Amino acid sequence: MSELKQVTHIDNVKLGEDKASVRILDQTQLPARTEYLILQTPEDLYDAIFELKVRGAPAIGICAGFGIYILARTIQTEDYDNFYRQFCEYRKYLDSARPTAVNLSWALNRMERVVIEHKELGVARILELLEQECMAIQQEDQEMCRAISEYGLSLLKDGDGILTHCNAGPLATSRYGTALGPLLLGKERGMEFHVFADETRPLLQGARLTSYELQKAGVDVTLICDNMASLVMKNGWVQACLVGCDRVAANGDTANKIGTSGVAILARYYGIPFYVLGPSSTIDLNCETGKDIAIELRSPDEIKKKFYQQSMALEEVKCYNPAFDVTDHTLITAIITERGICYPPYTESLARFR
Amino acid sequence: MSELKQVTHIDNVKLGEDKASVRILDQTQLPARTEYLILQTPEDLYDAIFELKVRGAPAIGICAGFGIYILARTIQTEDYDNFYRQFCEYRKYLDSARPTAVNLSWALNRMERVVIEHKELGVARILELLEQECMAIQQEDQEMCRAISEYGLSLLKDGDGILTHCNAGPLATSRYGTALGPLLLGKERGMEFHVFADETRPLLQGARLTSYELQKAGVDVTLICDNMASLVMKNGWVQACLVGCDRVAANGDTANKIGTSGVAILARYYGIPFYVLGPSSTIDLNCETGKDIAIELRSPDEIKKKFYQQSMALEEVKCYNPAFDVTDHTLITAIITERGICYPPYTESLARFR
Repeated sequence: MSELKQVTHIDNVKLGEDKASVRILDQTQLPARTEYLILQTPEDLYDAIFELKVRGAPAIGICAGFGIYILARTIQTEDYDNFYRQFCEYRKYLDSARPTAVNLSWALNRMERVVIEHKELGVARILELLEQECMAIQQEDQEMCRAISEYGLSLLKDGDGILTHCNAGPLATSRYGTALGPLLLGKERGMEFHVFADETRPLLQGARLTSYELQKAGVDVTLICDNMASLVMKNGWVQACLVGCDRVAANGDTANKIGTSGVAILARYYGIPFYVLGPSSTIDLNCETGKDIAIELRSPDEIKKKFYQQSMALEEVKCYNPAFDVTDHTLITAIITERGICYPPYTESLARFR
Repeated sequence: MSELKQVTHIDNVKLGEDKASVRILDQTQLPARTEYLILQTPEDLYDAIFELKVRGAPAIGICAGFGIYILARTIQTEDYDNFYRQFCEYRKYLDSARPTAVNLSWALNRMERVVIEHKELGVARILELLEQECMAIQQEDQEMCRAISEYGLSLLKDGDGILTHCNAGPLATSRYGTALGPLLLGKERGMEFHVFADETRPLLQGARLTSYELQKAGVDVTLICDNMASLVMKNGWVQACLVGCDRVAANGDTANKIGTSGVAILARYYGIPFYVLGPSSTIDLNCETGKDIAIELRSPDEIKKKFYQQSMALEEVKCYNPAFDVTDHTLITAIITERGICYPPYTESLARFR
């Protein structure tokens, strides 16, 4: 169990002792190097989120909570209105780092509510409450991951083959993770799963993070390219697909890492259950359907150049590089949150569980 | 048209003037460098095929034809039996370079038949006939590609969005290509297609070769990661999928680059026609179904290390790296060969067209 603990206790996001910095594990350097970064300025925080140094919807939320707290502490005023004005500027700036993950705005909204609701207590007291709130966001995430893992595990059998896409493990959250949670919890209980990790182009979170976390935890993992999922399923090696989520609309349409919808379509074709796992904070009842979810478009360089020794396509070749796609709710067998397992029709079950 | 000619006339495989070598364009160096290699020994030829320096089923067949011819010329004997024995050793060695593409054994078989059927003419005359045969294989491939392109083009409309996987263009054949043929022929006739090229992990033939060929030919091309195909289709940007083939079984099951079956399943889900294009030599009536097609497994390093500045996964992480998959015949709208367009039921239509 020591190796597992090592992994499930990775401190990927941590509030500095000085309360003037956030320490993150730089996920862009894995698996080659384990490097921590100290974030102090608004730009540090924005860049860390935008550059995916911290990534995974829950981890982004935790980082944003800590981040807005340390920035709030730098505001040099006792005047509430001035304080709130500056707070909102920081809030808006951090919120603009990535458009798709709901946890970013969710965490920042939670923090802003503390400021709004305690106006009468004064800035000094508000800062104390902000600290409690951001610590609570992290603490609650740990409890949520544990609960999601328990519910998810109840859907699996010992010996199952599992396919996962991108990374929704401890690195993406605070502990256990969401989609990887049932596998790590099952491992702790002596269960054996055979996991196929999609490498997840273009940023290779599956190769760099998922296979890393599972291997370190002693879970049997096989890395594949995204386009091999169909053959792996056809071979009969997959009994369930587990993926995380960045935003779930009221009807169950789910935004997650680009390629997730393809995995869901393959799973449907091969008759394999497809499960989405995430905290209930990911459910956005304000989004009626997936059509209302903004999809972040990123740089062509991520496809052509990043990670490579040389460019893999001509300079003038166009690229389309969406970071997410939306999986239609009709393709999803169940959505697992910390409050339980939602089955279709999602418009009803999600409204109950949010 | 000059740019197009430049591309469709790339001499990717050529018999040396000295008839003692085969000159190939090293496709593993594209798009960064245009380097030609002179192959002379059995090992040169084997490695070029195994390492994918020459690739694409038709181009492999052409290279193997030239290759076995130049090796036959080095056999130092006038005695037929000795000649044939050594010929068969070279033939077997070259044939073992890659197991899935039928054109490799098909071309070598054609060459061997020349040796067997003209035993009475003597070694010197047999060598002359072998030269004619390997030149004919290349010449016929050019004519086949032209015919495939014409039939394929008849299925498309000006302005169509097209998704393709891997590379089945001029570089993979002798001219025009198979899957890219209709697009290049259409371009010559002033038609505009909007092509989405899957990058095709792990060896990136779509990025390095397909987007290169189409861009050079002035065809509108957008490079995507394999896992983006679902979103591109959902966006309504794809009116047809065109792919090549490495081996087609008697029932229409089609082996092609890994990931092809996934594209076909997505196309079915989104209601988009899925076309397979290839020379009739690719149809292997000895294979009853796709179950009889051997799938080549390749090195984990192609997934974890090749092309990268550093390894993208821990050394100890397992990989599954199949080079091909089989697309079920039920997912294929039509199979286009130089003899015409085959529709289901393929057991009947392919038997007529082979």
